[in-house]
Amino acid sequence: MSSPAFPARTTTAEVELGTVLQPKFGPDGLIPCITQDATTGEVLMFAFMNAESLAHTLRTKRATYWSRSRNKLWVKGEESGNVQVVKEILTDCDQDVILLKVDQSGAGGAACHNGYKSCFYRKVAGAADADDPASLKLEFAAKRLFDPATVYKKK
Amino acid sequence: MSSPAFPARTTTAEVELGTVLQPKFGPDGLIPCITQDATTGEVLMFAFMNAESLAHTLRTKRATYWSRSRNKLWVKGEESGNVQVVKEILTDCDQDVILLKVDQSGAGGAACHNGYKSCFYRKVAGAADADDPASLKLEFAAKRLFDPATVYKKK
Repeated sequence: MSSPAFPARTTTAEVELGTVLQPKFGPDGLIPCITQDATTGEVLMFAFMNAESLAHTLRTKRATYWSRSRNKLWVKGEESGNVQVVKEILTDCDQDVILLKVDQSGAGGAACHNGYKSCFYRKVAGAADADDPASLKLEFAAKRLFDPATVYKKK
Repeated sequence: MSSPAFPARTTTAEVELGTVLQPKFGPDGLIPCITQDATTGEVLMFAFMNAESLAHTLRTKRATYWSRSRNKLWVKGEESGNVQVVKEILTDCDQDVILLKVDQSGAGGAACHNGYKSCFYRKVAGAADADDPASLKLEFAAKRLFDPATVYKKK
């Protein structure tokens, strides 16, 4: 598939306050994407898209990323069943970030390969000495929805 | 100021399921940061941190980024007054993204230099032909809180 043609970037005023989608892909061809639960607002994950991923997301309304580790198009849930149905697609002021609001369905309802609804399942604990970064601890802020070993097939 | 020492990355298991904060800074020394309203869940902005920004955020509980355009530490609101008081700091499964939950105070309550509460003030309109990326239009999904010309001083 050839790379989909998004409009070329024009002026700062048009990029920031205009109504034409003209996303900025980096030198590596990628744009960062934040994915949020459309109902609760919970941030589920962060990934990257290339032009093909973004076009595929727009066309199919299924969140589609670019896997940097596997170097391929990554239709979320194609393996685990935890697809993300896209409800809204936003971009930021300078159009160099994408924000997806999704309904995350599928058996587990988990975005994270570790079996959590959100990849952000740990937070910095409050009691540590903030002056010493090496002393900071994480605590789990979510419960695991499934055991990854039972969902992802061994390869 | 010397760069703060965060722990070195250890094993995948410890990074993903452990309780030591060992953030991954990229080759450019930066880690992506998503900032979300602690109360409403609205995604306010996306920026980058270096080790000094993250340590400053942890120590002061004021969201502090690294400005790539100005190549300097960026304490959010130092110019506009729209500071972000950090309520929670989370990281994702592979600890290469930071998520801040903040209370955004200050006169305007706007995260965006264009005068909107969130930088994500536009969404892709539904009626366009999704098969043709060049036809996609953005529509404004938020109202402007202030006119930037009255807040930022000319330099």
